[in-house]
Amino acid sequence: MTAPKLPEGIAALHAAYAAGLTPAALLAGLEARHAALADPGIFLHRPSEQALAEAAAALPDFDPLLYPLWGVPVAVKDNIDVAGMPTTAACPDYAYLPSESAPAVARLVAAGALVVGKTNLDQFATGLVGVRTPHPIPRNACAADRVPGGSSSGSAVAVAQGLALLALGTDTAGSGRVPAALNGLVGLKPSVGAIPSRGVVPACPSLDCISVFAHGVEDAWAAYAVMAGADNRDPWSRPITLGTPDAPLTRLGIPREADLHLDGAEQRAAWEASLARIALQATIEEIDLSPFLETARLLYDGAFVAERDAAFGHLVPRAAMHPVTQRILAGAARFTATDAFAGLHRLAALRLATQPAWSRMDALLVPTAPNFPTLAELEADPIGPNARLGTYTNFVNLLDLAALAVPACSRPDGLPFGVTLIGPRASDAALAATGARLMQVMA
Amino acid sequence: MTAPKLPEGIAALHAAYAAGLTPAALLAGLEARHAALADPGIFLHRPSEQALAEAAAALPDFDPLLYPLWGVPVAVKDNIDVAGMPTTAACPDYAYLPSESAPAVARLVAAGALVVGKTNLDQFATGLVGVRTPHPIPRNACAADRVPGGSSSGSAVAVAQGLALLALGTDTAGSGRVPAALNGLVGLKPSVGAIPSRGVVPACPSLDCISVFAHGVEDAWAAYAVMAGADNRDPWSRPITLGTPDAPLTRLGIPREADLHLDGAEQRAAWEASLARIALQATIEEIDLSPFLETARLLYDGAFVAERDAAFGHLVPRAAMHPVTQRILAGAARFTATDAFAGLHRLAALRLATQPAWSRMDALLVPTAPNFPTLAELEADPIGPNARLGTYTNFVNLLDLAALAVPACSRPDGLPFGVTLIGPRASDAALAATGARLMQVMA
Repeated sequence: MTAPKLPEGIAALHAAYAAGLTPAALLAGLEARHAALADPGIFLHRPSEQALAEAAAALPDFDPLLYPLWGVPVAVKDNIDVAGMPTTAACPDYAYLPSESAPAVARLVAAGALVVGKTNLDQFATGLVGVRTPHPIPRNACAADRVPGGSSSGSAVAVAQGLALLALGTDTAGSGRVPAALNGLVGLKPSVGAIPSRGVVPACPSLDCISVFAHGVEDAWAAYAVMAGADNRDPWSRPITLGTPDAPLTRLGIPREADLHLDGAEQRAAWEASLARIALQATIEEIDLSPFLETARLLYDGAFVAERDAAFGHLVPRAAMHPVTQRILAGAARFTATDAFAGLHRLAALRLATQPAWSRMDALLVPTAPNFPTLAELEADPIGPNARLGTYTNFVNLLDLAALAVPACSRPDGLPFGVTLIGPRASDAALAATGARLMQVMA
Repeated sequence: MTAPKLPEGIAALHAAYAAGLTPAALLAGLEARHAALADPGIFLHRPSEQALAEAAAALPDFDPLLYPLWGVPVAVKDNIDVAGMPTTAACPDYAYLPSESAPAVARLVAAGALVVGKTNLDQFATGLVGVRTPHPIPRNACAADRVPGGSSSGSAVAVAQGLALLALGTDTAGSGRVPAALNGLVGLKPSVGAIPSRGVVPACPSLDCISVFAHGVEDAWAAYAVMAGADNRDPWSRPITLGTPDAPLTRLGIPREADLHLDGAEQRAAWEASLARIALQATIEEIDLSPFLETARLLYDGAFVAERDAAFGHLVPRAAMHPVTQRILAGAARFTATDAFAGLHRLAALRLATQPAWSRMDALLVPTAPNFPTLAELEADPIGPNARLGTYTNFVNLLDLAALAVPACSRPDGLPFGVTLIGPRASDAALAATGARLMQVMA
């Protein structure tokens, strides 16, 4: 028996509500769909039927202008606090029960959203594969033998499988973009600090961003617009002018051949097919990405891994962590404080070195991920394919950029492929307008 | 024989030029004055008479509107590049001959300034005392048995002794403010990044600021206005809106008694006398400075000392450094990369903790230094009195603030005492207007 399908957009859902659908009926449908899927890896916590019914009953009168997310089911990555639901960051020994929601969640709920569960992740948001969890691994929504992508694995799969219309991820190194690409979704990674990261279990606090998964850019933007805004209790909150996504960008930079990393003919074919469509909408210029790619390597090959150690290395005993998480944190011990500052100085120099590229493009367009590893590949090598996934994502927050991952032309084998638009800080609205346009030509 | 005295302000100097003084005659007077002083510790390099004569001859026609620093003799701290003069940072083994001036110096020269020499400093700008140099120690201009203050010791003494009308220092932890206070001068420490720090030997690159010593605020501002502005080759350059110093601030915060550090009756008497005068011009409110003072302690007691190690620890063999410099850099080895990031996270939390204070004041007013050590005290303990000097200066750049040190009411024993105004980033002009007003009431 197949459960009724969730509409793939807020507008369609609101039309259904206007036509008589009730939140209670919607929630019952999601429950049935979750049961039918039989994937125990997606959610780490789901509220009781009673709690969900109470939340639905507490909704104000249906008014999508006043409440743009009225009745929208939202999944929340389990490193983000939702009042009354445990936060674990996929580390059972770390579990706590927050009495207050993260401001991002509180703002979604105030806009009418219904939180339908806390989702699985690479433990402490450290990974791009989605398999570094002590819980069952969420199944990739498009290919059960492939990794779901991470670290926001459960959030991406929840949306792709129709268990939520929107989901929150976090994105430090690419955790909000890679799983979007591997499950055929939009992943919006805002300018750093635009959404408060208070109430998020820290990974690299100076870089951590809350991100949004959705089927379309409009929905992702709707959630972002609700969550953006300063928070005077968050040391990492930074003001931003939000803007509106109405003017697509026209000059896109792409990796020159030397900087183009795509593993296998399927990935390359999808990239080339996507580019052919995109060229109908924008001018495309090849860019020397070497300072961007060197920045990407700083994040895990250099002293920055110690920022993770400083942020969560002390939260639970090492033995209580996933073996791969332990192994990554152990890498921090190789670096001295002098190395850390030398890395920050190198980053400053690389930021400067990337500046000239921005005079030649409005946004950078890259494959979201060069590869699409199988679960078997990750069992054989838990580090290598994961690092490879971050080729085009790791540098973004270090360089204080905004990014939007969108589904692109599928691979010849039918698996999803994604591209990411990357722009300067506060270009979020322009990236959204561009991403929406590109999705139209690539569909 | 006493050499002719340099006027103590640009306006007076320009009036003298208008009345017939020539740059050549001025330079000859400075030469005679330097000879009469017999202090070999002030300058580490002085250009030849011929080079100075050529620079004077190369000046455009006298026009102080087009060239606001026309014919103004400027001394430059020897960690800032002046084309054709050696840069050593008071470490002879590090010496090099730059072919290009730092942008700050080039802008001064383009405005008509004459560089009259490179000045002594605490080696690699690490110190607040001015005695950590392998060269003779510059004599404090007001008390030969006391430290000149550092690290910009030679620059402060050069201005105080009338060997230059303006001098450039650098100020990472207070090096542009402490020597101003101890020699009865104005010390302007701009917003971080407002003056390019390219061409400066790095101390803590994320914090290093070029600063200005002058007799009056107007002169310091004139130099700052010429030097401020972005530099697209400097990773630490940050744009700023300069403004004009026309509106003094009226709400000043001062340390509450628990946070008031003043060593001895002379220092306290000078502070109280100054406050009594300042209260005629501004409302004064006591502020809890604990998050500011905790930030100050991060700079040397925590992992930030490793930023110095990363910046210059590798430039020469340790044995080629001053013993105290070696000892400070050795402290970096105690800290891991994890400590470094934990320090940065603590700093972010402290920045947030200082925010509420800014709703209760327009600027913070503090003693520039709690103490005024003798040379003998420094011989007995080369670290303690130095650390004490930074009580009210160390936190300023870490918190991204602007500061202006001005001479205040003298101590009963006649020695100089100074106060510092501290404001948010980009408050430079407002601080200058306030400082000029306070100097009038304290004179």
